Amino acid sequence: MNINSNGTNEELSENDSIIQPLLTDLYQITMAYAYWKSGKTKDYSVFDLFFRKNPFGGEFTIFAGLEECLKFLKKFRFSKTDLEYLKQILPDSIEESFFNYLSSLTGHDVRLYAIAEGSVVFPRLPLMRVEGPLIVVQLMETTFLNLVNFASLVATNAARFRIVSGNVSLIECGLCKAQGPDGGLSASKYSYIGGIDATSNVLAGKLFGIPVQKINAPDYLVSLNGSSANTRNTHLSPKQGGKPRCLLELTLKWKQQLLILFKENSNQNEMDDELGNLVLQAVTFPDGFMTLVHIEDIERKGLVNFCAVALALNDLGYRAAGIRLNSGDLAYVSKVANSYFTKIKLKYKLAWFEHLIIMASNGINEDTIISLNEQIHKINCFGIGRHLVTCQRQPALGCVFKMVELNNQPRMKLSQDPFKVTMAGSKEAYRLYSNNGYALVDLLLRSTEQPPNENEKILCRHPLEESKRAYMMPAKVEKLLNLYWENGQFTKKLPTLKEIKEKVNNSLKSLRSDIKRNLNPTPYKVAVSDELYNFIHDSWLKSAPIEELF
Amino acid sequence: MNINSNGTNEELSENDSIIQPLLTDLYQITMAYAYWKSGKTKDYSVFDLFFRKNPFGGEFTIFAGLEECLKFLKKFRFSKTDLEYLKQILPDSIEESFFNYLSSLTGHDVRLYAIAEGSVVFPRLPLMRVEGPLIVVQLMETTFLNLVNFASLVATNAARFRIVSGNVSLIECGLCKAQGPDGGLSASKYSYIGGIDATSNVLAGKLFGIPVQKINAPDYLVSLNGSSANTRNTHLSPKQGGKPRCLLELTLKWKQQLLILFKENSNQNEMDDELGNLVLQAVTFPDGFMTLVHIEDIERKGLVNFCAVALALNDLGYRAAGIRLNSGDLAYVSKVANSYFTKIKLKYKLAWFEHLIIMASNGINEDTIISLNEQIHKINCFGIGRHLVTCQRQPALGCVFKMVELNNQPRMKLSQDPFKVTMAGSKEAYRLYSNNGYALVDLLLRSTEQPPNENEKILCRHPLEESKRAYMMPAKVEKLLNLYWENGQFTKKLPTLKEIKEKVNNSLKSLRSDIKRNLNPTPYKVAVSDELYNFIHDSWLKSAPIEELF
Repeated sequence: MNINSNGTNEELSENDSIIQPLLTDLYQITMAYAYWKSGKTKDYSVFDLFFRKNPFGGEFTIFAGLEECLKFLKKFRFSKTDLEYLKQILPDSIEESFFNYLSSLTGHDVRLYAIAEGSVVFPRLPLMRVEGPLIVVQLMETTFLNLVNFASLVATNAARFRIVSGNVSLIECGLCKAQGPDGGLSASKYSYIGGIDATSNVLAGKLFGIPVQKINAPDYLVSLNGSSANTRNTHLSPKQGGKPRCLLELTLKWKQQLLILFKENSNQNEMDDELGNLVLQAVTFPDGFMTLVHIEDIERKGLVNFCAVALALNDLGYRAAGIRLNSGDLAYVSKVANSYFTKIKLKYKLAWFEHLIIMASNGINEDTIISLNEQIHKINCFGIGRHLVTCQRQPALGCVFKMVELNNQPRMKLSQDPFKVTMAGSKEAYRLYSNNGYALVDLLLRSTEQPPNENEKILCRHPLEESKRAYMMPAKVEKLLNLYWENGQFTKKLPTLKEIKEKVNNSLKSLRSDIKRNLNPTPYKVAVSDELYNFIHDSWLKSAPIEELF
Repeated sequence: MNINSNGTNEELSENDSIIQPLLTDLYQITMAYAYWKSGKTKDYSVFDLFFRKNPFGGEFTIFAGLEECLKFLKKFRFSKTDLEYLKQILPDSIEESFFNYLSSLTGHDVRLYAIAEGSVVFPRLPLMRVEGPLIVVQLMETTFLNLVNFASLVATNAARFRIVSGNVSLIECGLCKAQGPDGGLSASKYSYIGGIDATSNVLAGKLFGIPVQKINAPDYLVSLNGSSANTRNTHLSPKQGGKPRCLLELTLKWKQQLLILFKENSNQNEMDDELGNLVLQAVTFPDGFMTLVHIEDIERKGLVNFCAVALALNDLGYRAAGIRLNSGDLAYVSKVANSYFTKIKLKYKLAWFEHLIIMASNGINEDTIISLNEQIHKINCFGIGRHLVTCQRQPALGCVFKMVELNNQPRMKLSQDPFKVTMAGSKEAYRLYSNNGYALVDLLLRSTEQPPNENEKILCRHPLEESKRAYMMPAKVEKLLNLYWENGQFTKKLPTLKEIKEKVNNSLKSLRSDIKRNLNPTPYKVAVSDELYNFIHDSWLKSAPIEELF
């Protein structure tokens, strides 16, 4: 992860980083050597980066990681120690001058076209088209894949959480369980762009400018055990100034009233250790007071206690934030909590009481949220940890990086499995929209073709199945692949993290909801032009040998 | 990830790193403030780091990440910009002098006890016991968990792959699909200690001294398409020097002989594009020649071609390395390949031919390997990618960090769920061994108790169930928790990566195989002393309120 102190990208950081040319597989280096030995230093190649299957059983993916790829491209250079290390591990037969050659390589002559970071993308669509000297581009394969795969996976995961959650706030809190320190940071960053509202990860906040939110620790109170509020100063000054008042006293008065209002067991102690601890906590953080409510709590003591403290704080001009639930029947307890808050709102004319946070954070995943939705829960904030950051449902995305052209000749990978055949040749990609703003289809063309025009009939073909064809008449045509890097320079201002987040949001809006739904989503189509269809099939037939079965 | 150029640890690197105090959850900072406000700066705490359930449905875990925790402890200090950032995001009500206090904090007064990195460990066993000022230790919670969770998860995953693979070589090649650049590096590092032999990740090799191995890329030949060997120089000098000879000619001669030897379809072309490309590749890398054999290849052309090139290389004094399979029926093809290699060995008296690498690398996971074992495959090397590095089967481990003592008073988390109750008080851990060297049980004691003695009867109790008790007579007793950090100093020389790998190996050897097996493994027991049992239960009863159910 390249560290960038303000989340904007005008000044790309030159920090030491582990994103460097050696962050690759050894075979990339040996392949480079083979090319070099075969005199291929002037060969010019075109590679497509794409994936073949959307993650999480869905029908869409969010493209992310582009900025990291561009930063890598910008600083691509083997260091002296890199070359020394390579000499050490490669066979002795490798010629010395190969290392001199490696030391001269930069990303200067590479051209990178890409779809905007944060766009919704689909199988077989080139997310990036990288052109340049064969050896240089080949040496970047593994790093590009590493940078795009996880970033896109997490962003997609976050977008899926966002879709099933509606307007509920989402806070990512997975640092403890993330795949390493950078796994945690990347997860915070790409969760944010994918649709999460805030993170609990402070460093992610500092480095990327993501909003940081606290989520009360479950064990906060363990350490306060026995520090009885009775014996400590619980005085607090009103927010607008004035003489401090005893928050404990106020709280106890409120609690008496609430027990009557809620008709709760009057045997319930009015004062208990928990209440004392809550008051201590409230004195420390009078604004935004938030606490964990244990669900096991059969007498709803926690809930009553929270309300009592919140009302006492209100007397002094402070607003409590809400409660957090992390075990038990979340839907049920959220409804009880909401009913308590509503009663208080009505009885004491405190409109804001109905908007208190009811946060749930217990192994939340997409399915939990869908099930909670069915139970018409009253949760208005989810804290999401490991399922989000490690993408538990599918922890890896399978982008590939395939050569499609070499020295202006199309190249394709052959396979008996049509699913694995690559589409030869340099291609352009357009998204065709209907007049109501929805994306209809993505269309791939040969780079040499005329782009499709708005309001003109275009034949869109299935890339593999001859009989699947349709005419389209797009109201709007969007060019998807744009140039980001050429002649050692950025050719576009890179968007900020916030802008990328906006892009995700807008891009998803242009997608029909049946494509985005969790259960049996409709596949979105990536089609090819008639010319590209014929070109691919000719190349395919030309290179596939005719078997002799006699 | 803290970068350490030689994999040894005598000189801990002071590199800038993302492992820093802000790599934490915001609530840790607000909790620290609450403690500070309550005057708890002199409070002395003891925390245990442990997990409750082994990953991957297994009954053991490998403890890893200790070195990273120690490095973090060593350089723990909030920077000026950290404090500025915190001021910005925390409520205005936070007192200014809290930030001065934060700026004074270091890990100097913390004491860290831990089990040796690489040890096999079990649920509820404290992996680390951290003692020190409450606020400082609390501020380290999230970072410690992040560092231990993923490291231990990957090391355990690797160990499981090792166990099911027997003596087959294992190469980690998951960088493309890892969870970010550091996710990939950490995975390479901890896979290696867990039992993997080498990685394809060059940077992991450079930084940690892990053996790096190349795995031929599937698409190597795509780019050579059409560079017919006929038109290029395929001359190669013998390894011991002498006049170059034409490798293509030699290969074609061998191919003719092989077609007869293997009684393969004589219609098979003796010369084809693939063979030409293989020869070109062999001229570039005459030593360690390795190639991908496509399984779809119904005439076994790839296999015959490989053997022909390998024999031609042998004529010139070079040894081929082997083949890689990455699709189709791996067990079947490995057996065919092995039978070809054996035939050649016998016919041409080339003993080493039987030891050629037969590598498989197609979405390999534990279950695939078990199934291949049942088919008595002849694979002698697995390349393992995403299933290993992202821990696809379970991508997060759930270590927790719980306060067990505060100012010499036991602390425990209460829960209706006995599974979640923590064991109060500072504890020691011992592993008791039988006289055949197997680990019998891990025994937890209060830190104030006398350690168990060898060859003396010891009562071992189940921590929760009163009736489960057993006497043990250990032939050997091993103290598990040892001091690593005190007074701002390391108190032990940290082991090298190789030594940690050794530790994993030896530690697993001390475990009965029924505990390590994949299907229905036997749980290993972590017991408590009689004194600890009573102490926990007294603390538990004392703090659990008696419900009034009338």
